[in-house]
Amino acid sequence: MKLLRHGPAGAEKPGIRLDDGTIRDLSGLVPDIAGAVLSDEGLAAIRAVDLSALPVVPADTRLGPCVGGTGKFICIGLNYADHAAESGMAVPPEPVIFMKATSAICGPYDPIIIPRGSEKTDWEVELAVIIGTRAKYVSEADALAHVAGFAITNDVSERAFQTERAGQWTKGKSCDNFGQIGPWLVTRDEVADPQNLPMWLKVNGQTMQDGSTRTMVYGVAHLVSYLSQFMTLHPGDVISTGTPPGVGMGQKPPRYLKVGDVVELGIEGLGQQRQTVIAD
Amino acid sequence: MKLLRHGPAGAEKPGIRLDDGTIRDLSGLVPDIAGAVLSDEGLAAIRAVDLSALPVVPADTRLGPCVGGTGKFICIGLNYADHAAESGMAVPPEPVIFMKATSAICGPYDPIIIPRGSEKTDWEVELAVIIGTRAKYVSEADALAHVAGFAITNDVSERAFQTERAGQWTKGKSCDNFGQIGPWLVTRDEVADPQNLPMWLKVNGQTMQDGSTRTMVYGVAHLVSYLSQFMTLHPGDVISTGTPPGVGMGQKPPRYLKVGDVVELGIEGLGQQRQTVIAD
Repeated sequence: MKLLRHGPAGAEKPGIRLDDGTIRDLSGLVPDIAGAVLSDEGLAAIRAVDLSALPVVPADTRLGPCVGGTGKFICIGLNYADHAAESGMAVPPEPVIFMKATSAICGPYDPIIIPRGSEKTDWEVELAVIIGTRAKYVSEADALAHVAGFAITNDVSERAFQTERAGQWTKGKSCDNFGQIGPWLVTRDEVADPQNLPMWLKVNGQTMQDGSTRTMVYGVAHLVSYLSQFMTLHPGDVISTGTPPGVGMGQKPPRYLKVGDVVELGIEGLGQQRQTVIAD
Repeated sequence: MKLLRHGPAGAEKPGIRLDDGTIRDLSGLVPDIAGAVLSDEGLAAIRAVDLSALPVVPADTRLGPCVGGTGKFICIGLNYADHAAESGMAVPPEPVIFMKATSAICGPYDPIIIPRGSEKTDWEVELAVIIGTRAKYVSEADALAHVAGFAITNDVSERAFQTERAGQWTKGKSCDNFGQIGPWLVTRDEVADPQNLPMWLKVNGQTMQDGSTRTMVYGVAHLVSYLSQFMTLHPGDVISTGTPPGVGMGQKPPRYLKVGDVVELGIEGLGQQRQTVIAD
């Protein structure tokens, strides 16, 4: 299933995209794409319904982030060997974890907002893992059973804030609208192999990132297990698993986003995002 | 006012501690110590009620974290010059920001849980600032108007996870029960000067930290303004403002928590916390 959230920011309702391309409203069935709805039982309850009988959501309705109630927006740094190289950093001996503020989360077509004082706002197409059930000290073998599904994230990053403004990356990762998630959460039964998904990102029609989750250093099952050794993962938590080469910082010379730019990104089977760049 | 949350973890109800030492239930008045309740108007509505007529909460009731709906648990690193020195790090030229997972948040008397594989679990008494109203690009002069009040945090930290396990501090800061907040949120009208509060922490009765917010490098108003340049602060967000000298890592030789230890900490006017240390 392709689960989503539609409506104005902060007041999104649950929905689903059917194979015929229509979006249907799930408000009568579940309160949100969040919490217990993300468990195997919660997802099975949706699957059991005649979805084609649900109300159609108008095609021009805004889509919000495809998951609600996100307590943690965890990111993995330098998780593609080639991206580490373009960043001038070594592949880490174990996963690098950092957090984005959950207040950065927005919808897949919401604008990228360049914060005041920014000159180095950058893009990062990433595979997001959305947690379905509580996970603590889980093994790699059991890890995927705790995953509700997958989505696209744009891990928008301000490189000067991230690395030139005193310690820790949070500052350059947490600005408003720096975390587009969606357009939909594709349940894990529909993703045959999360480690073999082509992914791409274009700026003004020019391909900047063209990679595959196949070249991740630490795969999804390892990451879920690894993170669960440090903290309990809860339903709705989002893990953004790192970006392949081709970010603006890695261009020669570096290239950053400017007002009016259009960013499009996609991952095979997970849909596409599209953002225009505006100033704050 | 001294606002708090009482009851089982995850199902806390709002409450208030009166000057006679009794705790009264606010469930009939507000849904939670969260969101709009934290605005000046929300707080004034509580203040206007005859609080001594509210139901008494039994004295042995568990207290939870004193604020709910926390979207961001932001911490400031190395914000006391002496603590930076004991950590072997320089005072940063501008505030160092990192995030703790909100899933680490717990009540003031909940145990400190040593995570599996930990040998370096450490303590940090800190002044927490609790945001009352949305703040974005606010000036230092306007910053305190966005603060609902103050509380104590124990920014429990696993030093090996933080600094010896590949990049970024999140890993050593986000374990379950690594963020005791409370016992109560003291509204800002009752804190005459947040930059002149004695603070202390004892382990098994021995004083380990004995400082004052007077020696903070970057004060509360500066921090709120500074953070709001990078991201929108929302009601219920918590900013833990750094710790004075005396953490376990800074002892000669270093000293870390072990099962059975008792940690007590306090800040003048904000009450006290007490935790026993257990294994996970």
